[in-house]
Amino acid sequence: MKYGEVFYNLRESNLSNWLLYTQHKFVKKFSDGSLNKTYFLNYLKQDYLFLIQFSKAWSLAILKSDNLEEMKIAASTVNELINFEMGLHIGLCEGYGISKLDLENTEEENENIAYTRYVLELGYSGDFLDLLSALAPCVLGYGEIGINLQNSSPKVSMYKKWIETYSSSEYQNVCFNVGKLIDKSFLLRLGENYTKTYKWKKANQIFKKATSLEVDFWNMALK
Amino acid sequence: MKYGEVFYNLRESNLSNWLLYTQHKFVKKFSDGSLNKTYFLNYLKQDYLFLIQFSKAWSLAILKSDNLEEMKIAASTVNELINFEMGLHIGLCEGYGISKLDLENTEEENENIAYTRYVLELGYSGDFLDLLSALAPCVLGYGEIGINLQNSSPKVSMYKKWIETYSSSEYQNVCFNVGKLIDKSFLLRLGENYTKTYKWKKANQIFKKATSLEVDFWNMALK
Amino acid sequence: MKYGEVFYNLRESNLSNWLLYTQHKFVKKFSDGSLNKTYFLNYLKQDYLFLIQFSKAWSLAILKSDNLEEMKIAASTVNELINFEMGLHIGLCEGYGISKLDLENTEEENENIAYTRYVLELGYSGDFLDLLSALAPCVLGYGEIGINLQNSSPKVSMYKKWIETYSSSEYQNVCFNVGKLIDKSFLLRLGENYTKTYKWKKANQIFKKATSLEVDFWNMALK
Amino acid sequence: MKYGEVFYNLRESNLSNWLLYTQHKFVKKFSDGSLNKTYFLNYLKQDYLFLIQFSKAWSLAILKSDNLEEMKIAASTVNELINFEMGLHIGLCEGYGISKLDLENTEEENENIAYTRYVLELGYSGDFLDLLSALAPCVLGYGEIGINLQNSSPKVSMYKKWIETYSSSEYQNVCFNVGKLIDKSFLLRLGENYTKTYKWKKANQIFKKATSLEVDFWNMALK
Repeated sequence: MKYGEVFYNLRESNLSNWLLYTQHKFVKKFSDGSLNKTYFLNYLKQDYLFLIQFSKAWSLAILKSDNLEEMKIAASTVNELINFEMGLHIGLCEGYGISKLDLENTEEENENIAYTRYVLELGYSGDFLDLLSALAPCVLGYGEIGINLQNSSPKVSMYKKWIETYSSSEYQNVCFNVGKLIDKSFLLRLGENYTKTYKWKKANQIFKKATSLEVDFWNMALK
Repeated sequence: MKYGEVFYNLRESNLSNWLLYTQHKFVKKFSDGSLNKTYFLNYLKQDYLFLIQFSKAWSLAILKSDNLEEMKIAASTVNELINFEMGLHIGLCEGYGISKLDLENTEEENENIAYTRYVLELGYSGDFLDLLSALAPCVLGYGEIGINLQNSSPKVSMYKKWIETYSSSEYQNVCFNVGKLIDKSFLLRLGENYTKTYKWKKANQIFKKATSLEVDFWNMALK
Repeated sequence: MKYGEVFYNLRESNLSNWLLYTQHKFVKKFSDGSLNKTYFLNYLKQDYLFLIQFSKAWSLAILKSDNLEEMKIAASTVNELINFEMGLHIGLCEGYGISKLDLENTEEENENIAYTRYVLELGYSGDFLDLLSALAPCVLGYGEIGINLQNSSPKVSMYKKWIETYSSSEYQNVCFNVGKLIDKSFLLRLGENYTKTYKWKKANQIFKKATSLEVDFWNMALK
Repeated sequence: MKYGEVFYNLRESNLSNWLLYTQHKFVKKFSDGSLNKTYFLNYLKQDYLFLIQFSKAWSLAILKSDNLEEMKIAASTVNELINFEMGLHIGLCEGYGISKLDLENTEEENENIAYTRYVLELGYSGDFLDLLSALAPCVLGYGEIGINLQNSSPKVSMYKKWIETYSSSEYQNVCFNVGKLIDKSFLLRLGENYTKTYKWKKANQIFKKATSLEVDFWNMALK
């Protein structure tokens, strides 16, 4: 999967961690249909709380933008997440029998807190590149997982709708656009030899840590 | 003009400052058509830079929201500002002969910096109510000015388009919605006796200061 | 233990969670001397990384202060933590055979990230009271644990030095001063009926969550 | 004056603005003793409010630090400013007949707001280098002004104490240390060819703007 050059480089440099995340047992259970429904429903509830914090993290991307073009992409993403995706997620949950009230009363698990607050804090204390490095594993990892599951999953699955969401051309487009934003913003700030810079080392540390927090999110979902 | 109860109270408590702003010489010159075109064009250029920072300040409202409903309104506003208003403003400037490049090359005046950074810093260091108290004079003041000018200005004016923007039912709707958001968020956090609280004193200080920075913005535009 | 009225109320309202934290198995193993040394050393290393983030969180208290008195206390605390405590901690670790380089090369565990980033993010997005509610379980919980262990532990213990640190009159003084700061800042902002306010509910949620993240920190230390 | 290589380069690249600030009419009036005492007292009052915000900006340097060494310097500076300098300033003001209550009741001028909020907002939205570029004109400019005045001022002057503060070896030491911190942090993050980077352009823009806001601060003091 190649959603852009910078992402490709980050993914390659952290490949073993990346595969722990994108090929996690939880994901495999999606694929072979063995995932316990209770686990899935709990995951959906946590994901609702995740999306709220994740949208806030993307809002910081607007604040950390260096030009109008970056602001525009970040603002669309935020609006898309809050005013559309949240609605879709609530609808998806309803389809599985989870009411909006259930979602609102869900208590945030510590693994969920770990990941979202890591990204948010970095969004506050870091710059645009730091923030994108922390957001990338989530956005682009789900894109990769979506494609993998689409190829490997049986045609009939109770998790079909979820799989379709992330393998859809719409979501894949989001991934390509975020990949382009990452490429463009790294090149603008660090130049063509970006892999030789101090910031690149930091981007890798952040990407690796965010990926490991995604792994723990799946672990939580199987508890 | 009454865009909501809380705003009404803030406006009343700071009326003399409020009128210095909304009935500023610059505004009167709009009304009687005596405004020098050069001043107007400089104002438009500064306002372009203002809008960028102002959109960033609204992004902080997403981060400081306490519930999904607040987030939704803030996110729409941000998206509206960045992905629509900015385009309208660029178009308006083009109509007056200012190119996009001119806008981007404009140097931010210190009075512009004073106001936008005051609001932004408060957005970072303060809470949702502090931020709204700082944003209110701009959003709602322009609504009031728009209505005033619509009533008092000659039918034919070179500033007609600008006046129409802020007196339009579309912009007035924005004002009523922001007014409602302010009411709801103050009541939620401070209760019905909100005018008796510590936070109310702070909200008034902020509202007053932001209003005085708006006055300086007009002063700058007449320099 | 009563380090102030507000803390006392927060502790009482969240007592079962509080005891899960302050009377955790890890703490009991300190007390009866059964704590495996390896676990203790790993804990000390994580605690080094914790202190760095914790100092940053206290720095946000300076930024969120409403008056010079609050700023002074927060600034002293930050300086104390960074320019003295860190040195003591490094010395303590050396005494147990952990070099400074070991400390710097320690990888942050996810449970450590969860707690510190939760507090830091809240420091950025919340106000002074939110931040203090998140800092309190750490500062004051260790004070309480220190006193408990001093009373219950055998005179000879390899963890004596650690226990002495937190039961020392010096550290207990810090606790009383932080307790006073909490009391004063809640009263200033919320008034005498503070337990009837919206903010009080939020303070309790934060205190409870931060306490639960402390529990997970101990869990991590026993893994 | 050379408080470090990076500062020297920033100063050289923005020399005309730099001299507008460091050789401002207000400063010259210090030097020849023609400064109206009322102006000076108003300046001292605004400077009190300035110091509060300036200390908060330095607190952000702790949060934006990348290592313990940077944190230590920033934390000492913050503590020095809040727990010592503020006291000295209050004492200095008392010596000139301004009570602490006068200071606390002083209303912040818009030029004061412009500068402090510019630096603070940058501290929140930018990184360590951005923040240092904005802090440098104040810290190091006053060092340069202090030395200049010491050389040019008559031995007997009512402003002698103020001049001595900034020409003292103690304050000059602060300048050299801040200069070293700037050098070290730029080299760490941008490497030896730092003047060829995107960040260097940004550092210059920030330095220039902060310098121009210092000029306006002097202008305000002469109003």
